[in-house]
Amino acid sequence: MNTPLTPLQLADRGFKYYGKRLALIDGERRYTYDEWSQRIFRLARALQDAGVKAGDRVAVLMPNTGPMLDMFYAVPWIGAVLVPLNTRLVADDYGYILDHSESRLIVIDGDLWPLLEPLKDRLPPLWVSGKSVEGQVDLEPLLSSHSGDPLPLPDIREDDTMTLNYTSGTTARPKGVELTHRNLLINAVDFTYHLQVSLGDVYLHTLPMFHVNGWGGVWAVSGVGGVHVTLPKVEGARIWEAIRQNDVTRMCGAPAVLNMMIHTASSSGVSHPVLVATAGAPPPAAIIERMESLGFKILHVYGLTEVSPFITVSEWVPEERNWPVDQRAIRSSRQGISQLLAGEVRVVRADGTDVRENGEEMGEIVCRGNVVMKGYYKDPQATEKSMRGGWFHTGDLAVVHPDHYIEIRDRDKDVIISGGENISSVEVESVLYRHPAIADAAVISVPHEKWGETVKAIVVPKAGMNPTQEDIIRFCREYLAHFKCPTSVEVVSALPRTASGKVQKYLLREPFWKDQGKRVH
Amino acid sequence: MNTPLTPLQLADRGFKYYGKRLALIDGERRYTYDEWSQRIFRLARALQDAGVKAGDRVAVLMPNTGPMLDMFYAVPWIGAVLVPLNTRLVADDYGYILDHSESRLIVIDGDLWPLLEPLKDRLPPLWVSGKSVEGQVDLEPLLSSHSGDPLPLPDIREDDTMTLNYTSGTTARPKGVELTHRNLLINAVDFTYHLQVSLGDVYLHTLPMFHVNGWGGVWAVSGVGGVHVTLPKVEGARIWEAIRQNDVTRMCGAPAVLNMMIHTASSSGVSHPVLVATAGAPPPAAIIERMESLGFKILHVYGLTEVSPFITVSEWVPEERNWPVDQRAIRSSRQGISQLLAGEVRVVRADGTDVRENGEEMGEIVCRGNVVMKGYYKDPQATEKSMRGGWFHTGDLAVVHPDHYIEIRDRDKDVIISGGENISSVEVESVLYRHPAIADAAVISVPHEKWGETVKAIVVPKAGMNPTQEDIIRFCREYLAHFKCPTSVEVVSALPRTASGKVQKYLLREPFWKDQGKRVH
Repeated sequence: MNTPLTPLQLADRGFKYYGKRLALIDGERRYTYDEWSQRIFRLARALQDAGVKAGDRVAVLMPNTGPMLDMFYAVPWIGAVLVPLNTRLVADDYGYILDHSESRLIVIDGDLWPLLEPLKDRLPPLWVSGKSVEGQVDLEPLLSSHSGDPLPLPDIREDDTMTLNYTSGTTARPKGVELTHRNLLINAVDFTYHLQVSLGDVYLHTLPMFHVNGWGGVWAVSGVGGVHVTLPKVEGARIWEAIRQNDVTRMCGAPAVLNMMIHTASSSGVSHPVLVATAGAPPPAAIIERMESLGFKILHVYGLTEVSPFITVSEWVPEERNWPVDQRAIRSSRQGISQLLAGEVRVVRADGTDVRENGEEMGEIVCRGNVVMKGYYKDPQATEKSMRGGWFHTGDLAVVHPDHYIEIRDRDKDVIISGGENISSVEVESVLYRHPAIADAAVISVPHEKWGETVKAIVVPKAGMNPTQEDIIRFCREYLAHFKCPTSVEVVSALPRTASGKVQKYLLREPFWKDQGKRVH
Repeated sequence: MNTPLTPLQLADRGFKYYGKRLALIDGERRYTYDEWSQRIFRLARALQDAGVKAGDRVAVLMPNTGPMLDMFYAVPWIGAVLVPLNTRLVADDYGYILDHSESRLIVIDGDLWPLLEPLKDRLPPLWVSGKSVEGQVDLEPLLSSHSGDPLPLPDIREDDTMTLNYTSGTTARPKGVELTHRNLLINAVDFTYHLQVSLGDVYLHTLPMFHVNGWGGVWAVSGVGGVHVTLPKVEGARIWEAIRQNDVTRMCGAPAVLNMMIHTASSSGVSHPVLVATAGAPPPAAIIERMESLGFKILHVYGLTEVSPFITVSEWVPEERNWPVDQRAIRSSRQGISQLLAGEVRVVRADGTDVRENGEEMGEIVCRGNVVMKGYYKDPQATEKSMRGGWFHTGDLAVVHPDHYIEIRDRDKDVIISGGENISSVEVESVLYRHPAIADAAVISVPHEKWGETVKAIVVPKAGMNPTQEDIIRFCREYLAHFKCPTSVEVVSALPRTASGKVQKYLLREPFWKDQGKRVH
């Protein structure tokens, strides 16, 4: 007897069995599962009353607050599709995504209104949580005017889209990744299993929920009666305070976040072990060592928006108990093997055959299975291209070690990952080309101590022009989210190109990466 | 991108990633995952060569040996359906099941040939593992003549039947429960999660694999690279020896098995914690206390063949660390709440509404979700009846406590569970009716210290006849597996009946159960 696989079944279990237990710590407020589910059902009814129907898209632009978490339940609970927006974009990006997704409604945190204000004449109906915005609808009164009685699970099919997550890929415009209820349930189970989340665990939301639904943590924690702790601002001191005040046991974060924690740590660390999943870049040995000495256990996972997002895990092996930290760090820094339910992961040559497992031959990571997205929204061509041959192509280039562990060595040259955020080099280049003094431009990633990688622009000036680094960076900031802008600019007389005119980025990158042993962080 | 949910995906992961690690300890023999998977693929090819096709049924009659475990992989790997036979039945039962399932082949352990010998003229082709049987085909030479190269996963749909598990229900004949690949994967994931099985764990197969596929343990352990340890004979001393020799960390067993362990324990117990899942009857406080003092942690789970088999778990709650063992035992003895992925479990009145959660009002346990069987094989009427209203009806009667924990208090009067084995009272009664001196008969369960429950016959003699207890039990043993036979017989002058002629079993049971606080063990 099949019932639809959906993360909402985890919520349903949590709401049913853990009603009197603590569910959510949101700043000064604490909610039991009963109290929290009532908020969610009030919100779901308010959305219905506003005319949101099954299949409609509802966008959300908020930091990691309680109301943000509520949206991951209330929207799909009426069969609608959640569109979580990155809080670090610019108005032009938001306008594009709201149009492309045809969002019927958007719910924002009042503090983020300045991000959308430039679009105010073309926005869908907007609800505001927290600080009021003149002329816009406040969320809280809407909630109190609706019933919090339980709603039955929605009448969905497991292959219906549950979230539409926009990602910066290789093109100038973000792509909408359609993740289904089934995709997201399977990923949430992998999250639950590999992060060993169970009743009694306290999960700190350091990872932005807009990043592929907090990697699945928004739902996994509820299925087993764990406690969600929100964290609207990711700063070292705030993380430490949240961990200590709430006896946090589980969290996720890019290595940059771990680094931030290390730099603000007191000598004592934590008194009980805290398991931290990290992704976005391999955690360096020094970070693993320091985090362990502070009482944390690091689990390196790897994935992409298109795979819900987890596909691999660098799992702990029994024998490593006796290994020195350097040796453990080598294993931990690799992306590892496929997670329990993620499906098949391979590293293949251009002809689709597997590379040798010798730690040397590079190929592209491809995968297939139940975490692979339904497709790119309204973009059948891009979908087909990424799924060619029945395998999803990640664009990440890796070797496979003799122990079957995958290690990423390079990436599709058009994507840069800085501090866990994907940046499309094509998008940055398209802005550089608009600069009046630039004739030719290429954007590459270079290593960065804090962010793993950062954006570097290599530009050729127009004849007789002499643009400065400061001028170019300032120009980019007018059109791009700050995290996407170059942090350094080099002016050259010409870019190296192939006979067919393609920029040879590997030549540009070489001087910056030659001592790193690989070409990505 | 959907790929079929199947326990074979767990095997595929295990074979791929843990090839050099120990997979199976089978008596004196040790197999790595590479070596073990080769055996499985040899067997799969041998089955194909023998003409077994996708959808065909293949029966197996073996104790918990390595070759038995192999069958749970090799048969579905070619898309065929495994029919695991209980080793405690009689020839008549085996004949019925082989006919009903239309098994195309049967693989047995040579030591069990006497069970089938009476049927030798009507058996399907038969292969023998272990001790040879004259005139029958030996398994091992078949394996060595086939290649052990990996076979791709079979081209199945997740709703295809993977195993056909015959169960003694309320009728005289066993019913074939069709469990799908999807059913069994979801159950295996619940097994993995709730029993906390991970790389480095060593699982002892104390639970017969023919019992609903070892509750899912046959597959769950392989997905995470754990070690299977077989145990052909379940005896206290052998269990202890296996645990100590192999550093076992996980096992399953009915309370009767735990009891057996307690009675053969040395004072030292185990040096590392061993997690034991128990089901079939609630573990009494004394058993929990003693097992804990020996170093075991007890997890009470509940289920039925028709639900793959797990539906509920009596989970550990954080606060119980400080509870006295008596209080923990009360919670542990209850069947608990639904497992992570099992689906919805309710306790309902005859009209389908939920009972109050007051620990008093009784109703029937019903459930729906992805672990519920496809149906009873060739029995649409029984299937429809058990699934009425869209919920599977367990026949178990329970209360719900204010903490949402289900506790079974009674059962469909026609099923007796003794030592973890289901016994149909109708089947036993049908044999009693054949006794020349018996006019009327009813079979009930009575409490039994070792087996939880045992079978009692209440009989009315024919006029002028005077059958004795010994005579009646001897008669039953001619037609029934010994574990199904009455252990005591009471001769009465008439059975209490309702106006419509139905035997009032609750009246018969009352004197034996009145001090127990419930009506089942």
